[in-house]
Amino acid sequence: MSDLIVPRTLKGFRDYPPELMLPRESLMETARHVYRSYGFAPIDTPALEYAEILCGKGSDETDKQMYRFKDAGDRDIGLRFDLTVPFARFAAQHIGSLGTPFKRYHIAPVWRGENTQRGRFREFVQCDFDTIGTQSIASDVEILLVIQDLLHALGIERFKIQLNDRRVLTGVLEQVELLDQSVAILRALDKLTKVGAERVAAEMAETAGADASQAGKIIALAACEGTNEEILRQLQQLTRGSARGEEGVAFLQQVVSLADAAGLSAEQLRVSPSIARGLDYYTGMVVETFLDDLPEIGSICSGGRYDNLAGLYTKQQLPGIGASLGLDRLLAALEELGKLPTTQTAAPVFIAYFEADRLADYLRLAKSLRAAGLGVEVFPEPKKIGQQLKYADRRGFTWAVIQGADEFERAICQLKHLKTAETREISVANGPSQLIQALTET
Amino acid sequence: MSDLIVPRTLKGFRDYPPELMLPRESLMETARHVYRSYGFAPIDTPALEYAEILCGKGSDETDKQMYRFKDAGDRDIGLRFDLTVPFARFAAQHIGSLGTPFKRYHIAPVWRGENTQRGRFREFVQCDFDTIGTQSIASDVEILLVIQDLLHALGIERFKIQLNDRRVLTGVLEQVELLDQSVAILRALDKLTKVGAERVAAEMAETAGADASQAGKIIALAACEGTNEEILRQLQQLTRGSARGEEGVAFLQQVVSLADAAGLSAEQLRVSPSIARGLDYYTGMVVETFLDDLPEIGSICSGGRYDNLAGLYTKQQLPGIGASLGLDRLLAALEELGKLPTTQTAAPVFIAYFEADRLADYLRLAKSLRAAGLGVEVFPEPKKIGQQLKYADRRGFTWAVIQGADEFERAICQLKHLKTAETREISVANGPSQLIQALTET
Repeated sequence: MSDLIVPRTLKGFRDYPPELMLPRESLMETARHVYRSYGFAPIDTPALEYAEILCGKGSDETDKQMYRFKDAGDRDIGLRFDLTVPFARFAAQHIGSLGTPFKRYHIAPVWRGENTQRGRFREFVQCDFDTIGTQSIASDVEILLVIQDLLHALGIERFKIQLNDRRVLTGVLEQVELLDQSVAILRALDKLTKVGAERVAAEMAETAGADASQAGKIIALAACEGTNEEILRQLQQLTRGSARGEEGVAFLQQVVSLADAAGLSAEQLRVSPSIARGLDYYTGMVVETFLDDLPEIGSICSGGRYDNLAGLYTKQQLPGIGASLGLDRLLAALEELGKLPTTQTAAPVFIAYFEADRLADYLRLAKSLRAAGLGVEVFPEPKKIGQQLKYADRRGFTWAVIQGADEFERAICQLKHLKTAETREISVANGPSQLIQALTET
Repeated sequence: MSDLIVPRTLKGFRDYPPELMLPRESLMETARHVYRSYGFAPIDTPALEYAEILCGKGSDETDKQMYRFKDAGDRDIGLRFDLTVPFARFAAQHIGSLGTPFKRYHIAPVWRGENTQRGRFREFVQCDFDTIGTQSIASDVEILLVIQDLLHALGIERFKIQLNDRRVLTGVLEQVELLDQSVAILRALDKLTKVGAERVAAEMAETAGADASQAGKIIALAACEGTNEEILRQLQQLTRGSARGEEGVAFLQQVVSLADAAGLSAEQLRVSPSIARGLDYYTGMVVETFLDDLPEIGSICSGGRYDNLAGLYTKQQLPGIGASLGLDRLLAALEELGKLPTTQTAAPVFIAYFEADRLADYLRLAKSLRAAGLGVEVFPEPKKIGQQLKYADRRGFTWAVIQGADEFERAICQLKHLKTAETREISVANGPSQLIQALTET
């Protein structure tokens, strides 16, 4: 059989076996549940789109990363590399019938043929949520509450939502007349924690022509520290005289106060003037989220406010705000924090197939347990019980139900807890109700 | 702005706005829940694979339909056109560490560049479930029970699971020495209900060289009618002397009897000798599922038993059985049967934003309702109440909660049922508990 095809996946792609896919599905279910609880509704768009649509706003970087090809009809098409561009196209196409405000979530894979170093994959799932068609601060605050609820629902209490408003930095850059150098400025500023103020100022001088006073003011902005109140006070001073900057600071004050009233306290929400999140897209609030116990994995939920989502495809101005949960990054984090279940099955109950001619009985019992809401697997072959229990252990079932000839005769079953090995006899003389009780009471 | 890009999807592709995506997600959730309740565990595989892997078993037909191209690294790759081929590759690659029996489900999109007539799309979701590594009849019966549970969970009681065993026809073809003509025979037999026995026999004579006696025996097999017992008796007679055929009939008898014992009665399970489901793949039981009220849309859940899943990629013999739920076909059917909800939101409660400076109060109230398990949307802007209620109506919310200055003063809220327009005053003097009760009691 030398003509076997070697089973393998493409470089940068991976399979998800049950022990990885179960928590991944559970994360997606939690995200769906939380998004829905705020009135976000699901949409889906095609994985394949016209390359023209996908490239519309693309940088050279995304163009290079896109899987792009000709289909059988010689159309120039590509696989989406994010969910934002398809959403912009979707919104431009359908907003007339959908109406505004429109709140959507979209959980779906995207593809990027990027460098596969550092555990990055070429296929990964994004979990976006956005509200478009409104400028109201209510939507900004809501994004923060969703992030809080998401993390709480995942059992994570120790995190920081870092908040900034793009107008603060933009205002100061206007004031020091360096707005047209903002890309270079931001690139330098990004290194502040790594290389220190002096070297950042030197880079700003070199790449953006910033003098010491200009650089100093910008660095002072990013370096603000303290409580939210203290930082906001410093920002107020630093932006004084810049209408835009003052607007940004006032907005941050309002967001912090509303969030606090809605149960998101300073413990979990931090004004962070150094956060920028790229230059050309966001125009107002920006947000990143870090786990206290694993800050080094980076932001697990990021987003911000934009003035116009779909300008490439429609004249209708669609302002909005949204964020994206980094599902696979969060999954890796939960794994590292030991917060992932280590099972290969979503069913807790294993029924051994002991007596060859009793299959119908096992199937009936399984049916009753399922009707009571329990997940149940019946082993498919009447193999040796030791072999079956080894299988059950390996898969991670919690309970094994065992009925042999003796048990059938006595109208009982053995219920074995597979983690503790504790075994009890349960009567099934009057049906499975006692068994169901034993299985559900813990 | 003449340089706008026209927002559009590719031919054969479509967007799913909330009113379509909500029931689609709900179908997938139901499928996941039922699969899991039998111990099937989720897996995922990459959308992109080496073309060599995907083409392995492909016919000219699938080759032509596949989206195939060269990636940036000049690899010959393609988008999966089903979930079976990737599962075969996955199983060959991982079965050593996974162990058998292995039960998986996989819910994911597939792509086929096929003709787009008759409401078929080039991207659609498949929902496969399979048990591999066992030949036990327990797994065959289980597939039928899963289908029954799936449909019940979707609120469908009127359906027929049609059951056959490929060995029955194969046995008879062996007997009449036409096994090597089985493709032509099946193609002719497929038209039996449409064109009648005479013309089928004529086609069999022409394309497979079958004489009247041979054709007659094959047609008699496919034409068996009556109760399951009556059909099984006829099949027994027709297969007499063919070891394989008799094996198939005995197997069907056992499946029917076990299924019946496990609660799947003849009302919903029918032996149907005319079902074949293609020739080169299935080797034992085959199954299709039709809705009593919409038989014309075709089978909504089909599958069967195979001897060897992954023979192209491994020497390890992996027998198994599985089926696939036709998600989008079922969605279309439910729509036609009026069984789809017609809402654009998954949240039942709408909170109007009435008093501009009371946003924090509305957010707090929403939080309390969410904590009680209710989905709640707060309108983001303090627009006119009529405009807000129009929005709430359009989105399909069930309840609107309205609090203006007067209501805040009196510590009440107005609770309006949006379908009946009935409005009640509810006290919130002691927190939202009375409101929660009113919202959850119906």
